Amino acid sequence: MSNANGNGVVEAFKAAAATCPLPPAIDLIGEKWTILILRGSMTGLCHFEEFQAGLGIARNILSDRLAKLVAGGLLSRETDGFDRRKIVYALTRKGRDLLPVMVALRQWAQKYGHGYPPGFPVDRLQGKPVRQILVQAEDGRELTLEDLNWVDVGGTMPPFEGARTAA
Amino acid sequence: MSNANGNGVVEAFKAAAATCPLPPAIDLIGEKWTILILRGSMTGLCHFEEFQAGLGIARNILSDRLAKLVAGGLLSRETDGFDRRKIVYALTRKGRDLLPVMVALRQWAQKYGHGYPPGFPVDRLQGKPVRQILVQAEDGRELTLEDLNWVDVGGTMPPFEGARTAA
Repeated sequence: MSNANGNGVVEAFKAAAATCPLPPAIDLIGEKWTILILRGSMTGLCHFEEFQAGLGIARNILSDRLAKLVAGGLLSRETDGFDRRKIVYALTRKGRDLLPVMVALRQWAQKYGHGYPPGFPVDRLQGKPVRQILVQAEDGRELTLEDLNWVDVGGTMPPFEGARTAA
Repeated sequence: MSNANGNGVVEAFKAAAATCPLPPAIDLIGEKWTILILRGSMTGLCHFEEFQAGLGIARNILSDRLAKLVAGGLLSRETDGFDRRKIVYALTRKGRDLLPVMVALRQWAQKYGHGYPPGFPVDRLQGKPVRQILVQAEDGRELTLEDLNWVDVGGTMPPFEGARTAA
């Protein structure tokens, strides 16, 4: 194995990875059309035809992704109260609660030059961009990787000394 | 088109979606092995053999995902200073800066029952779980979807009135 890390880190990681919530989350949202549909839902789209026109997505792909988002509990699928021939796709609480993830991912991607030109969500009340999303301690201190322990199945993982950051 | 939204929302969305930073970000991290490799890097893994043992991943898939993370600028690939026959994969600044995204995604996934049993990152100094990640205004107010305007290419998108949330 490694010089820097004993087997302890690898074994602890293995136990934690098997039950980690990140892979199932990525299975739900880790696809470009899916993330654009969610983004559309958050900015006001709700009908199939709106998503289709707004995303320029093939109809069969859109159908597939909407069905997956409904099955995953991120969107609900209901008859439109204004026009009962139409279906409304609306964010559920679970879908709405993705907002911090979406904003954090967007801030990160923009910082590193993905997407152009930069757009951003602003606070309607003050017209100012939202804060940079940070990981914070209970008392509000910003936390970096070195400030964290990862408590997981089997207890606290070994401390972070072994990790490397590029110079 | 829609009753609830005029063409304005769809057209604004279309312009914004074409340059949105989310799809390229998802192209970089939206895959379950990739997210587990990043998670491993953040918790102390750095050698190929450690990732392989810790993730239980096929060697060819691991090679492919590591190469993509290096190409995407999230990991660096360097000779190990302790053993020059070995390669160290270390988080770059860009990779480290994904921490808020990873923590927000993990919190969301755990809230909705993905992954088991719940684990969490804790602040080393105080031993307490990190704060729930929120979207906040400059003055610290928590912001929900209804509090946001999305400023994007072509100016501010129409307000959020058209969006639906499931009952």
